[in-house]
Amino acid sequence: MTTTPARRHSHLLARRDLDFMLREWLDVVRLTTRSRFKEHSAETFSAVLDLSEQLAERKFAPHNREADLREPVVGADGRVELIPAVRDAIDAYLTAGLQAASFDHAYGGMQLPVTVRQASSLWFTAANASTTGYLFLTSAAANLLVAHADADLVDRYARPMIEGRFFGTMCLSEPEAGSSLADITTRAELRNDGTYRLRGTKMWISAGDHELGENIVHLVLARTGGSGIDGISLFTVPKYLVEADGSIGEHNDVALLGLNHKMGNRGTTNAVLGFGEGAHRPRGEAGAIGYLVGAEGNGLACMFHMMNEARIAVGAGAVSLGYTGYLKSLAYAKTRLQGRRAGEQDPSAPRVPIIEHADVRRMLLAQKSYVEGSLALILYCARLVDEQASAPDQAERDRARMVLDVLTPIAKSFPAQWCLAANDLAIQIHGGYGYTRDFDVEQHYRDNRLNQIHEGTHGVQGLDLLGRKVRANGGGAFRMLIDSMRQTALSARKKNGEPAALAELLERRIDRLVVTTEMLSRSGDREAAMANSSMYLEAMGHVVIAWLWLEQVVVAADKVDDFYDGKRAAARYFFHYELPRTDHQFDLLRRFDRTTLDLDPEWL
Amino acid sequence: MTTTPARRHSHLLARRDLDFMLREWLDVVRLTTRSRFKEHSAETFSAVLDLSEQLAERKFAPHNREADLREPVVGADGRVELIPAVRDAIDAYLTAGLQAASFDHAYGGMQLPVTVRQASSLWFTAANASTTGYLFLTSAAANLLVAHADADLVDRYARPMIEGRFFGTMCLSEPEAGSSLADITTRAELRNDGTYRLRGTKMWISAGDHELGENIVHLVLARTGGSGIDGISLFTVPKYLVEADGSIGEHNDVALLGLNHKMGNRGTTNAVLGFGEGAHRPRGEAGAIGYLVGAEGNGLACMFHMMNEARIAVGAGAVSLGYTGYLKSLAYAKTRLQGRRAGEQDPSAPRVPIIEHADVRRMLLAQKSYVEGSLALILYCARLVDEQASAPDQAERDRARMVLDVLTPIAKSFPAQWCLAANDLAIQIHGGYGYTRDFDVEQHYRDNRLNQIHEGTHGVQGLDLLGRKVRANGGGAFRMLIDSMRQTALSARKKNGEPAALAELLERRIDRLVVTTEMLSRSGDREAAMANSSMYLEAMGHVVIAWLWLEQVVVAADKVDDFYDGKRAAARYFFHYELPRTDHQFDLLRRFDRTTLDLDPEWL
Repeated sequence: MTTTPARRHSHLLARRDLDFMLREWLDVVRLTTRSRFKEHSAETFSAVLDLSEQLAERKFAPHNREADLREPVVGADGRVELIPAVRDAIDAYLTAGLQAASFDHAYGGMQLPVTVRQASSLWFTAANASTTGYLFLTSAAANLLVAHADADLVDRYARPMIEGRFFGTMCLSEPEAGSSLADITTRAELRNDGTYRLRGTKMWISAGDHELGENIVHLVLARTGGSGIDGISLFTVPKYLVEADGSIGEHNDVALLGLNHKMGNRGTTNAVLGFGEGAHRPRGEAGAIGYLVGAEGNGLACMFHMMNEARIAVGAGAVSLGYTGYLKSLAYAKTRLQGRRAGEQDPSAPRVPIIEHADVRRMLLAQKSYVEGSLALILYCARLVDEQASAPDQAERDRARMVLDVLTPIAKSFPAQWCLAANDLAIQIHGGYGYTRDFDVEQHYRDNRLNQIHEGTHGVQGLDLLGRKVRANGGGAFRMLIDSMRQTALSARKKNGEPAALAELLERRIDRLVVTTEMLSRSGDREAAMANSSMYLEAMGHVVIAWLWLEQVVVAADKVDDFYDGKRAAARYFFHYELPRTDHQFDLLRRFDRTTLDLDPEWL
Repeated sequence: MTTTPARRHSHLLARRDLDFMLREWLDVVRLTTRSRFKEHSAETFSAVLDLSEQLAERKFAPHNREADLREPVVGADGRVELIPAVRDAIDAYLTAGLQAASFDHAYGGMQLPVTVRQASSLWFTAANASTTGYLFLTSAAANLLVAHADADLVDRYARPMIEGRFFGTMCLSEPEAGSSLADITTRAELRNDGTYRLRGTKMWISAGDHELGENIVHLVLARTGGSGIDGISLFTVPKYLVEADGSIGEHNDVALLGLNHKMGNRGTTNAVLGFGEGAHRPRGEAGAIGYLVGAEGNGLACMFHMMNEARIAVGAGAVSLGYTGYLKSLAYAKTRLQGRRAGEQDPSAPRVPIIEHADVRRMLLAQKSYVEGSLALILYCARLVDEQASAPDQAERDRARMVLDVLTPIAKSFPAQWCLAANDLAIQIHGGYGYTRDFDVEQHYRDNRLNQIHEGTHGVQGLDLLGRKVRANGGGAFRMLIDSMRQTALSARKKNGEPAALAELLERRIDRLVVTTEMLSRSGDREAAMANSSMYLEAMGHVVIAWLWLEQVVVAADKVDDFYDGKRAAARYFFHYELPRTDHQFDLLRRFDRTTLDLDPEWL
């Protein structure tokens, strides 16, 4: 991996920063000593990143605006029409072999570490979140099938997805059931031949219909039993049935009922799908044919295997949009002349680039602290996935899995919230220009707004974190995470000067986080303890990101150049301007504030 | 004014809340004892609000989405085309006589108090910010002419604007000069006949071109002298010259160079205008003919007279978008069923409206606290304008003017920031639906994003507040405001229970605000003192809004019904969840944090 800062900012991501995180901090090259990754090297990792940057810039970024302006439409023949550039970009990605990158050799993959694949993916979402959606949903769906489906389903449906011939979707939500999946009403009925027939309507299906490949494989949650989550199972429901010889067969009873028109992310079709509406009659009968994945009643568990991955992917998408917006506003701030240095009284003095103004610097440092802090979190999570898959010792693998589980709600929520805030600041730095469609930042802001909603809203992540994750294993996973944080603080204390000072600031908040978590977890009044779970999510998110900034400061300590000074400045900003936000959040959590609980809806 | 809560929420604004603020709190009826307003009564005020609500709902709200989807375009003939509904709405507004409402009788106005006119205006911006723009920019421009132009200009240009025949614009920014108006390069050259010829390009001109009236009157800043602000003068530059008899004459040398395409507020044309490009040759010669307003070199001072009004109008626009988004998400939360009450284990138990979930209540209370707090600020400012115009005592008039001056940057910035945050939460409550164009809230969010940019960015307001406003008159205006706050706290202390407790929380922050302001104002290191002026703006904004919430709590004290309980709940929310944000902001200001100043741009 190169560290040459020759072309430091591509305006999509900063390669120098990726190299810093992957090589200097997370030491991904060490993974090549493990059997799973033994065919890889620093050079292959670097080649993947080089290729990703080039493809993203040449094939994905150029049509990002066009995809926003010319949304998918349903043509006269009922087919979904996308702009041609989407297909070109996807073909280039598939041809480069990136879709199969982190799959096992057995499936034609290259067994690339997830950490490197994650870094690769960021280039594409930074360049074009909506086109990338078709690819990444497919690999996530294939991943789920490989993990939970039987060999026949994998061969018939997952392999063509990994090869790029088929595409995939996740069909969870329904018009009346989004956050509350326990209430889905789509039903699946077992037939004598072991297949099922599905009937129901699914909503918000990203990439739900299009003509990019030979087939679309829907992974659908449907009810096989009674009420509640135990009655829910997971099915593979292809748009077209695949015959035993792999050929494309009949059109399944899956119908496109309509497209949703969104504020952003417009290039990805977002569909309402009808299953079993009788639009087609496969094998002579209405009802969408589905194949059970995993055991009956185990649908949510199977889906949640993928949901953790999907949540981190949402966080990663948010990071990449935040990051590119930051780089664009940085480039603008360095070149846009406006006003004079503070205190300059002579109106004929030369104008200065706006980066000279303190408030513009604040907005840049804030963005940098959010997006690089979030990037660190996403890559750290990816690194845990690799540990889980390849660490020599079972205890280490378990530890990675457990810490990843605790971090997942934060890996989703912090980037979704704060990288959107970064995009807001990127607009602000551009002034009136940033509010127009002539500049990219307004689109990033609209695209990024989705990320607080899908794959579990912000509020749902808070309930998950405080209600489940920090209590799991008697709080064991949470304690492991806390131990890692304290370890970092200890390392920082051993350095001179600022790292030690920052460590003290972090330790103070770790202590508060631990005390607060114990109080809330042990409380007999669960309703009151959970009332402010979103605030808990946000407070813990800030502590986690501060920790990861301290990790970076430790790595950067004693290293001298602009890049490391930038890391130190952003860390300083985060510790001085951001981390103290948590103090009043912990105060409020500690007193079990009941303002929301005691509200009578009639008062509003 | 009625207080009947029969139709409590129209989903644009809450009339009950407006009546509470105008009648129970600001006592606007008392204004009718003053000679300027003696022809008015509680009944005329109420009639204006009734009319405004009806017109806004019937004529403005219905085409809000259409105006967003079908932006103004330049037709083959070079004319700007708007959807027809815009003209219909504007005609209805003019026919109702609302455009002239707060102008003097001498100009055909009804001398309506600004407080009531402000309340009236909010209905229209809540219904349709972009169509309203054409009207409100015109009345603001006419207002400026009435204040600063000579009688002939007023007769020829301002009167037709008040009558609704002409429209108006403000032309300040240029492609290279936005926040830094001192750098404008448009030049005006005096001719023998006392007129001027202007040459230059103006940018971001809202309502800069259209065919809604007989003429468009541009108020243009242009350079008559050397560099800096002393060389800038203000001109009336009509699209069509008006002859001495009032008839429409030649096309002036003003050309539409292009339209900007924005993220929101799409229905208001936003133009690049070329003055003196030679597109037309009025009086046989190229160069846009302009008429001086006020004295040469006094352009910015004249414009700033209007800028304060414009800034409060921006805040008001932000409030109305925040308010309508709040009401829409409230209605959604009361009807959308999802999930079960916390702790319910039975999956067959009935689903509950999402307002039962603590986190949804948090998002509703947050919105309520932002939008009603901001509304209070906007109406309080309007009430000061009325005091300034009508208080019997000169000292009272001066006091009103000075306090208004200090509050103006906050009246612009707090609503722009926090009512946008409210719109963000309104989307979040709607979930995936809120992210689609099938619901209004995504448009409000896009429309509202403009308000942190125009009429002085957030950063500019911070510099104005800390650099000028709180220092004005040796800090005298600031002290008057602080005295008002302390008075409110004293009143609250005399009530039993919660008001006294909230008063204590407020007083603690008033003390910090005073100490911080003195430290920063007296510091010899002005650069360091100003480095965090945006944070000062935000901290003081929160203190001001907390004060106005306490004002409402005092008025509501001892009154019992759902409405007042709602006021108390929102105040409680603001004091417990929001006001404590200021503590770390004051800490940071107190230590003259230099993180941004010490940043070397090369580090980024």
